[in-house]
Amino acid sequence: MKFSQFGHKFSQKTGALQLMDDLAYAAGSGQIQAMLGGGNPARIPEVEAAYQQAYSDLGAAGFSEVVASYSGSQGDAAFLQTLADFFNRQYDWGITPAHIAITNGSQNAFFYLFNLFSGAYEGGQTRQILLPLVPEYLGYADVHVDAPHFVAARPQIEATQYRGQAGFFKYRIDFAEVERLLAAGDVGAICCSRPTNPSGNVLTDAEIARLSALAASYDIPLIVDYAYGEPFPGIQFTPVQLSLAPHHILCFSLSKTGLPSLRTGIVVAAPEVIAAISALNATLSLAPGRLSAAIARPLLAHDGKGSLRQLSQEVIRPFYQARADFAIDLLRQELAGYPLRIHQPEGAIFLWLWFEGLPISTNTLYEELKAAGTLVVPGAYYFPGIDTSQDRHAHECLRMSYAQDEATLRIGISSIARLVKQAYQKGKDHAP
Amino acid sequence: MKFSQFGHKFSQKTGALQLMDDLAYAAGSGQIQAMLGGGNPARIPEVEAAYQQAYSDLGAAGFSEVVASYSGSQGDAAFLQTLADFFNRQYDWGITPAHIAITNGSQNAFFYLFNLFSGAYEGGQTRQILLPLVPEYLGYADVHVDAPHFVAARPQIEATQYRGQAGFFKYRIDFAEVERLLAAGDVGAICCSRPTNPSGNVLTDAEIARLSALAASYDIPLIVDYAYGEPFPGIQFTPVQLSLAPHHILCFSLSKTGLPSLRTGIVVAAPEVIAAISALNATLSLAPGRLSAAIARPLLAHDGKGSLRQLSQEVIRPFYQARADFAIDLLRQELAGYPLRIHQPEGAIFLWLWFEGLPISTNTLYEELKAAGTLVVPGAYYFPGIDTSQDRHAHECLRMSYAQDEATLRIGISSIARLVKQAYQKGKDHAP
Repeated sequence: MKFSQFGHKFSQKTGALQLMDDLAYAAGSGQIQAMLGGGNPARIPEVEAAYQQAYSDLGAAGFSEVVASYSGSQGDAAFLQTLADFFNRQYDWGITPAHIAITNGSQNAFFYLFNLFSGAYEGGQTRQILLPLVPEYLGYADVHVDAPHFVAARPQIEATQYRGQAGFFKYRIDFAEVERLLAAGDVGAICCSRPTNPSGNVLTDAEIARLSALAASYDIPLIVDYAYGEPFPGIQFTPVQLSLAPHHILCFSLSKTGLPSLRTGIVVAAPEVIAAISALNATLSLAPGRLSAAIARPLLAHDGKGSLRQLSQEVIRPFYQARADFAIDLLRQELAGYPLRIHQPEGAIFLWLWFEGLPISTNTLYEELKAAGTLVVPGAYYFPGIDTSQDRHAHECLRMSYAQDEATLRIGISSIARLVKQAYQKGKDHAP
Repeated sequence: MKFSQFGHKFSQKTGALQLMDDLAYAAGSGQIQAMLGGGNPARIPEVEAAYQQAYSDLGAAGFSEVVASYSGSQGDAAFLQTLADFFNRQYDWGITPAHIAITNGSQNAFFYLFNLFSGAYEGGQTRQILLPLVPEYLGYADVHVDAPHFVAARPQIEATQYRGQAGFFKYRIDFAEVERLLAAGDVGAICCSRPTNPSGNVLTDAEIARLSALAASYDIPLIVDYAYGEPFPGIQFTPVQLSLAPHHILCFSLSKTGLPSLRTGIVVAAPEVIAAISALNATLSLAPGRLSAAIARPLLAHDGKGSLRQLSQEVIRPFYQARADFAIDLLRQELAGYPLRIHQPEGAIFLWLWFEGLPISTNTLYEELKAAGTLVVPGAYYFPGIDTSQDRHAHECLRMSYAQDEATLRIGISSIARLVKQAYQKGKDHAP
């Protein structure tokens, strides 16, 4: 049996597959004490209680009603209406269900969008996805049906303080580089996540506005991935505006609110983009799964107590902010005196650690940590569109999740500290 | 905003999209009295009761356990083990979880498989999917990421009797044609559905064995789609054997057992094929949905009363057989004296009607029926790999579902009969 080129491309070991394999390994092997890799959200009792209430309210008979029929390929009609109303309440966008499509998870939406807006074009042109700031989500890297089509801008790095303390930094978009890449003429869309997975960076409203204007001037879409951000799960610690324009494509997800395995991505965009996504849903999987519509709809139908809006703002966000602070304190304590720098924690469920001058690559550190029972994700995965082979910064960074409980974070951070110190020490021993 | 070639290809109006749009139209427009299009299964109380019991047994707390974590990209580990045990009990295949992957519905599996085993190959070769017998499932037609890659063999048509009555026919594989197509040298895989959607044909064990031997001799896989067949939902009215060999890829689905909107496809194949599907799952959607694993697992863990095996054989199959017979009787009664021929009803949930010499195309008949409140699917959609523009047979056939209740079948069949008679009558009036 011989695989096609498509088969060879997609059966390679990708970053996303590595991540999912690590999740399965952590769950099944018994060898991992601290799972700080992956993007599994925390289990938050108050949020689970709300979803459990929805499960009970739906009931067994309601379950049968929902699962007995396919939804349309755009998604469950009532859910689309509830979502349109929800977004209009929050942002006054004036959208209708024609502006919304459901996908089998947000990753699935990015497979669609990147292939819709890059790769081969009629007339022999090839277009690229422009990532205006890397590091950026590794799951983007391998979704193209043929070869990767990315151009990316390395960020400017700004030293920052967090809670009055130094040792932090923030990425800023290098707009001169972004404009240079756009002017090169083969960009099909601009894409960024907000907050950014992996760094926890939140692009400012000014940065988004400038990207939007640039995209409009090139007649290309601006895709913004809000999987960790507003309005749900709302894991961002600085206030932001969400804007919608005809050339904006906004992606949302129920995963990080606590429903990862119901696989529910939500795309808000112009109707012609939604029509293309519906068509892709039909051809690739007939229709998206429908149960999440029934489970999440009651929580999206209002914004009061027990709504997803209220839970996001008053439960989920403070939960993660407290855990981020816990992890930061522990890291700085364990690695006091070492050149640890942490990206300004502005959102998402990860800390992005930068070990400047680390004598080993974080790929090696990842392997050592895995052997010691702690999983993280090495930094170099997060630079789609960049050749990182000579890029020190990429290999000095790693992503760790802080979604685990405090005991697990203690174990994992203690391992990280021990092996990082060891690496720096070995580097000193071998220094000329 | 400009779409890529991929975007243009996948945003076309495909057969699958038409079908899904019709489902949504039927559900939402209030204009359709008889939905005999689409592939939505019937709601069977005894089966729903079993799934409802599983829902209740899982409970709200169990629900949280399931949805709170991604499964691995191959699927829920416990579900894979249950499925391996299930298949080994039925067929003694000796498989392990490494032989099984879960996809977001069976359609999704075919998107993967057809792109894995046809299209562009290294070295500049292009390979095709060989459909040894068309008509074949329309959802196959548009899944290739670039252009369709099919070769197909028209069937031999054999007059048959059903319950002692003439007016029936059965498709048989034209093996001379199949061998000619294989010898042409660019076939990447052979694929068939069993029972066949749309015709209800069930390929015989001898036909499958011969296809398997041919596939083996060309070192290509034989893909068999059991979405409507053994072992669940078991909607086939003639006994069949299921064989597994290293070059077989068998596809199953929970949809037609009553869970269409949980989107659960199951692929059984050699571990290297399963690894490729897992990798595709990871890249395209991280992981398949997990809830169906929790709902269906209890019904697959044994074969006694209330198991999916028992329900398939003793409830689902007789249910559809009775409904097929009801629809057949009604059709023959309403169209007595007209040249209606029905494909031998051997399984699946459809009747395949052939109106020989019909003066209008069934595309036109479909439009007329839709305007009159009845949905069916015109035949020409079901001939991937065949140029049907000059093919009378394709345009004389249509597919109607018999999954609806008797009252709905009465309405729909009455409409079909009225408009078919009208068409024949007009043809006579205009005859020279």
